[in-house]
Amino acid sequence: MSPHLLSIDPLTRDHVDHLLRVAARMEPIAQRRQVTRVLEGAVLGNLFFEASTRTRVSFNAAFCRLGGSVCDTTGFTFSSMAKGESLYDTSRVMSGYCDAIVMRHPDQGSVAEFAAATHVPVINGGDGPGEHPSQALLDLYTIDKEFARLGKKLSGSHILLTGDLKYGRTVHSLIKLLSLYDPMRITLVSPPGLEMPSHVIDRVVSRGHRVEQRDSLACDFSDLDVVYTTRIQKERFTEEMSESFAGVSQDFSVGRDFLDAHCNDTTIVMHPLPRDSRPGANDLNVDLNGDPRLAIFRQTDNGIPMRMAIFAALLRVEDLIEKDLRPVRWFVPERVGVDDADH
Amino acid sequence: MSPHLLSIDPLTRDHVDHLLRVAARMEPIAQRRQVTRVLEGAVLGNLFFEASTRTRVSFNAAFCRLGGSVCDTTGFTFSSMAKGESLYDTSRVMSGYCDAIVMRHPDQGSVAEFAAATHVPVINGGDGPGEHPSQALLDLYTIDKEFARLGKKLSGSHILLTGDLKYGRTVHSLIKLLSLYDPMRITLVSPPGLEMPSHVIDRVVSRGHRVEQRDSLACDFSDLDVVYTTRIQKERFTEEMSESFAGVSQDFSVGRDFLDAHCNDTTIVMHPLPRDSRPGANDLNVDLNGDPRLAIFRQTDNGIPMRMAIFAALLRVEDLIEKDLRPVRWFVPERVGVDDADH
Amino acid sequence: MSPHLLSIDPLTRDHVDHLLRVAARMEPIAQRRQVTRVLEGAVLGNLFFEASTRTRVSFNAAFCRLGGSVCDTTGFTFSSMAKGESLYDTSRVMSGYCDAIVMRHPDQGSVAEFAAATHVPVINGGDGPGEHPSQALLDLYTIDKEFARLGKKLSGSHILLTGDLKYGRTVHSLIKLLSLYDPMRITLVSPPGLEMPSHVIDRVVSRGHRVEQRDSLACDFSDLDVVYTTRIQKERFTEEMSESFAGVSQDFSVGRDFLDAHCNDTTIVMHPLPRDSRPGANDLNVDLNGDPRLAIFRQTDNGIPMRMAIFAALLRVEDLIEKDLRPVRWFVPERVGVDDADH
Repeated sequence: MSPHLLSIDPLTRDHVDHLLRVAARMEPIAQRRQVTRVLEGAVLGNLFFEASTRTRVSFNAAFCRLGGSVCDTTGFTFSSMAKGESLYDTSRVMSGYCDAIVMRHPDQGSVAEFAAATHVPVINGGDGPGEHPSQALLDLYTIDKEFARLGKKLSGSHILLTGDLKYGRTVHSLIKLLSLYDPMRITLVSPPGLEMPSHVIDRVVSRGHRVEQRDSLACDFSDLDVVYTTRIQKERFTEEMSESFAGVSQDFSVGRDFLDAHCNDTTIVMHPLPRDSRPGANDLNVDLNGDPRLAIFRQTDNGIPMRMAIFAALLRVEDLIEKDLRPVRWFVPERVGVDDADH
Repeated sequence: MSPHLLSIDPLTRDHVDHLLRVAARMEPIAQRRQVTRVLEGAVLGNLFFEASTRTRVSFNAAFCRLGGSVCDTTGFTFSSMAKGESLYDTSRVMSGYCDAIVMRHPDQGSVAEFAAATHVPVINGGDGPGEHPSQALLDLYTIDKEFARLGKKLSGSHILLTGDLKYGRTVHSLIKLLSLYDPMRITLVSPPGLEMPSHVIDRVVSRGHRVEQRDSLACDFSDLDVVYTTRIQKERFTEEMSESFAGVSQDFSVGRDFLDAHCNDTTIVMHPLPRDSRPGANDLNVDLNGDPRLAIFRQTDNGIPMRMAIFAALLRVEDLIEKDLRPVRWFVPERVGVDDADH
Repeated sequence: MSPHLLSIDPLTRDHVDHLLRVAARMEPIAQRRQVTRVLEGAVLGNLFFEASTRTRVSFNAAFCRLGGSVCDTTGFTFSSMAKGESLYDTSRVMSGYCDAIVMRHPDQGSVAEFAAATHVPVINGGDGPGEHPSQALLDLYTIDKEFARLGKKLSGSHILLTGDLKYGRTVHSLIKLLSLYDPMRITLVSPPGLEMPSHVIDRVVSRGHRVEQRDSLACDFSDLDVVYTTRIQKERFTEEMSESFAGVSQDFSVGRDFLDAHCNDTTIVMHPLPRDSRPGANDLNVDLNGDPRLAIFRQTDNGIPMRMAIFAALLRVEDLIEKDLRPVRWFVPERVGVDDADH
């Protein structure tokens, strides 16, 4: 495995399986039954040149739970970069202060440029339209964990991906990860103009998966195991698309009606979050709140063990943690970090 | 006690007495004679949707002194909430990352809405005109501690509250806390139009306290044990009030003259801070700086043991701390965190 | 030594030698071979009223590597100061929360005013055109360390300082530090109007050093041991200066040509960073990247052990650290924090 985690592309199935296994071993810590001090003395540079509170806090908390300390940087401007400092210089300077770096930046490729200047492990926390590999890994980990709970297998399962499949970096990365596994059935549903790029589909098909495309959620689906929805960002639309889309936007909102019509008791519903919960939003419907099939908060919970696994793997402490566990001493409410189905 | 600390209202005298006792037991740590590691591995989400550096740092430092780690969020916008994320979603997501959450938000009721979606303890760090319970608790703790030092008792004491008694959430919460104790004499002084709401006064009177209202500090006061002053925020005034208030604003500024005229050697002067120290400000006068009766910095110092006590009580580690103490190893200047009377 | 580090001026050679020695003893931690827990339980208030990500993270990481926790404040406004709070009040309040304070502020003298109100150690992290003593100390530490590596001595060495020598607080502080040592040869090169103030030169000369002034890098230099370059900030220029300077700005950019013409294999090139790497910038040329004589990243790396030494000295734990070392358990790439010459 590379010293960095910049993209899903170079990951082999062995790499991914290793991260899934390490994440599972992090669960006692993520669920707050035990604590470790394995990264005591280590410093994470958590550099968010673009605001993303959720992702920033998730990486921060994951590093803290391994015993390390975190230096956060937030905001759109980095004082020295505003004075003309290159990414090369910033990278070299930060490498002297930190043991690992998470970087989010609005420009595609910027995180890779930053990583090229350092030997310190760099994790891409999202580079604009580029990659956000830790999100895809926690999504796969969620499917894997939910399937284990439900007694299902990835092989032969039916996965629906819906929403903005053209610009959504999350679904691109997730489908690439899924394609590393045994053949499954993948249905793609998006409004016209926001379809999954054909080169991504070709790659998935070439690996033996069955891919179908639809332009409406009103079609007949059967045996759905996973419904993965994403937000359609109106700012992506051309004027022409906006007009044609106006009448159909609700068609791409997954809610109780959709589940009643097309799903069974063991289907799970996922979303990378945040979702728009305002009235009229064409996003995952809040009428599913409290439904045990809604896995979105279990999904964000899973960000902690997966990001711990990524840090542990890059900093090569994954085999030291079991020898360094102590029980949690504070009060932990039931189901925290475990299962919020009937919260 | 509820899993959260959202308001003073549901607290009984037993709850408050418990917090006062636990805060007293936190003093060796707050005064930096000892350190504990009891919350090692725990993560606090310190979510400040409204800027308040002092309160944010106080909660942050209190959690660190218990051995925990802190993820801070500051600023008026929370990136995902700007995209339409509900407080419900934000709460569920943050609960998966953190073991306790402090939240400050400009909208009254927002912190309670946030807390309703989670089992993780939530502390209200101020919700606009609503509540700020940890401030009232540290104020009460300060009075209790100062009275113990001076050999006084709360029962039968004379407490003056002055300034903006209509909108000041601090004085509302403090008087509610005081009303849980044995009868005392409470004098309220405010400009016309900024009086304490009558429902608050009724509650205090119904519990046996003697309450008097005045509209000027030029009255004759006697035997004052506590002078609690608050800032009058001019932005609260209607145009009419501004005109009538213009000539009297200095009347509500407590300074050395007031203490010489109305107080004795054992009166203490408090203020929730920050105070406006600019010339002409109608706030607590800087001519009291260095006077041992000025308790305002002892008061902010007391925020650390009281906030430690709140965390310890909500996370149920208050009885574990004594078994987990180690001596401080660094140099601590005299009187730090103890007494700044003649700093 | 004073309880604070506000300026280079009061430091004696004994103070500086002590800090250099303590910094050298911090290297095993800074280079991530060992960790310490000596400041466990201590809290740093890292107050940046002016943005400076690099300096903020460097102080933060240094405190974490000693085992402490950090409360960061960033941004141009401090919420309570915007409401009229005095530096005196802010200082007293923060002293109750923190064991040490780093403060950066745009106004000269503000950090000293803040420090006067507290017994908690305060470090000046830069007060506008005033002082930035930790930068000068890490610069001296870098020269000392590089000379030791190269078998050179400070006494009799030839040091070139170039760029904006009038307004650059960094070079003022560094030359004051150098002047404490045995006589050396110091050449100053700046455009007309940006010369080193004569009172600084007089002080250095009075201590037995040989100082020469030049107005161009095209002169004949010989036996340069250190080339210390600084950025010329165009916003410093009067209109008249801008006109006359337009033609010569590139003359003050140090790059490979300059090194080929005037330096040897053991010359080192320094810069306080950030440098402007944009095309046409009159700053340290990027064509030196990868040249082992370029010491700028070793220089920023040295900020960690020097700032650890400053904290250790002010908090008086420098003699406790050796007894509190544990090996690092995570993977550390080669040369991190050590030497990036051929990175």
